[in-house]
Amino acid sequence: MNTEKLILVVNDDGVTAPGIRALVEAMHGLGRVVVVAPDKPQSGMGHAITIGSPLRLESTDIIPGVEAYQCSGTPVDCVKLAVDKILHRHPDLCVSGVNHGSNSSINVIYSGTMSAAVEASIEGIPAIGFSLLDYAFEADFSAAKHYARELAIKVLANGLPEKTLLNVNFPKLPLSEIKGMRVCRQAQAKWVEEFEERLDPRGKKYYWMTGRFQNEDAGIDTDEWALANNFVSVVPVQFDLTAHHAMSHINQLLS
Amino acid sequence: MNTEKLILVVNDDGVTAPGIRALVEAMHGLGRVVVVAPDKPQSGMGHAITIGSPLRLESTDIIPGVEAYQCSGTPVDCVKLAVDKILHRHPDLCVSGVNHGSNSSINVIYSGTMSAAVEASIEGIPAIGFSLLDYAFEADFSAAKHYARELAIKVLANGLPEKTLLNVNFPKLPLSEIKGMRVCRQAQAKWVEEFEERLDPRGKKYYWMTGRFQNEDAGIDTDEWALANNFVSVVPVQFDLTAHHAMSHINQLLS
Repeated sequence: MNTEKLILVVNDDGVTAPGIRALVEAMHGLGRVVVVAPDKPQSGMGHAITIGSPLRLESTDIIPGVEAYQCSGTPVDCVKLAVDKILHRHPDLCVSGVNHGSNSSINVIYSGTMSAAVEASIEGIPAIGFSLLDYAFEADFSAAKHYARELAIKVLANGLPEKTLLNVNFPKLPLSEIKGMRVCRQAQAKWVEEFEERLDPRGKKYYWMTGRFQNEDAGIDTDEWALANNFVSVVPVQFDLTAHHAMSHINQLLS
Repeated sequence: MNTEKLILVVNDDGVTAPGIRALVEAMHGLGRVVVVAPDKPQSGMGHAITIGSPLRLESTDIIPGVEAYQCSGTPVDCVKLAVDKILHRHPDLCVSGVNHGSNSSINVIYSGTMSAAVEASIEGIPAIGFSLLDYAFEADFSAAKHYARELAIKVLANGLPEKTLLNVNFPKLPLSEIKGMRVCRQAQAKWVEEFEERLDPRGKKYYWMTGRFQNEDAGIDTDEWALANNFVSVVPVQFDLTAHHAMSHINQLLS
């Protein structure tokens, strides 16, 4: 079975999250599935890596019938360790998620789920990150599973353009109410932070991050529009951050 | 003095790092300088934010004569907290660094220094990240200070294009040997990880991340080329990750 496809499944909510089980189920029969996920929630870790401390990696039977490992590091660490120490080759596909909560628009940059997929793509592995607009532990992943499987089959068969991965978000809807997939751009949006200040029992201040999501983009070609209109949003993502369009402007600034 | 400029200085090496002192010195006289930096090294934190635990923020007199705060969070947390709880308005400029070590090419995505600058840019603040190709604690920041000041003056006077920040790297050279600044694109490069496996005193495995930087880009318009040829590299950076050039390809894939 040298032709069997190899599929790496990662996430940021940790190996015990229902979302990763849903994704494993969605990959059933498409190839050899290996799970390498954080041993604790790692939401909001962005593209963090572990430099100053060592990592642990342990086999786990938490997902019945599936080869799975839990890692003490970040989502990006999971991908790096999986390739070097478990798979010993590049998988044919890396799928990340299904995240409990949205990773649309600007959230892509804070997301551990998406950063794991970005890391795979940097390493030349076709990669897709999946997120469901429902934070609930008991969220319904059935529509997500349907589309994740469809996308995985297409990407396993056709690959993805070089240095490009996919950021896929699912509206919180049953499959029958979803109108299909829509290729979009990332909406221009941001979080407006308002830290909540409290006093600890010793009278010293501490702060909780709270935020308000602010969509500044009325475009109908964005992921926010697609999700609000009952579509699955599919955003092609790149990891080269060069602002090529600004080169001449910056040359002028420096001259 | 309503016209006085407000400059936020952040980093990822922590408030005690020599690099941030160099940057504070470089900003001297350009406006009111406020430092908000992590209370411990936060290298490799990427765009991580702190969601599940509260943050501490404390005034510190570690940099004589400068209003400075240390924060228990990530570099991105520092920017968010600074704007909401210390400055109470958007600064006119956010400078991050000077990082001890390169943040050229793909390193931009792992870098806490650059992620702090990216966060400022997301919030609409003109931002520049600075890094010196020298990890040493006693590194010579004099050339970095010279160019950081020159760039800060230009950006304070002229701003930056919308949603664009600068990633500036300095070669490890005295000022007299640097040929000037060069606007470049990020070189296509990656890290090839080789985790070192060890056994702890109880006989259980653990792993240290080690890596080899692999530049796959022979272009003479890249930051790697500029740095190798004694230039300061200036890369315009964007935070919209949409791979616009791949839209039609992905539409075809899904059809």
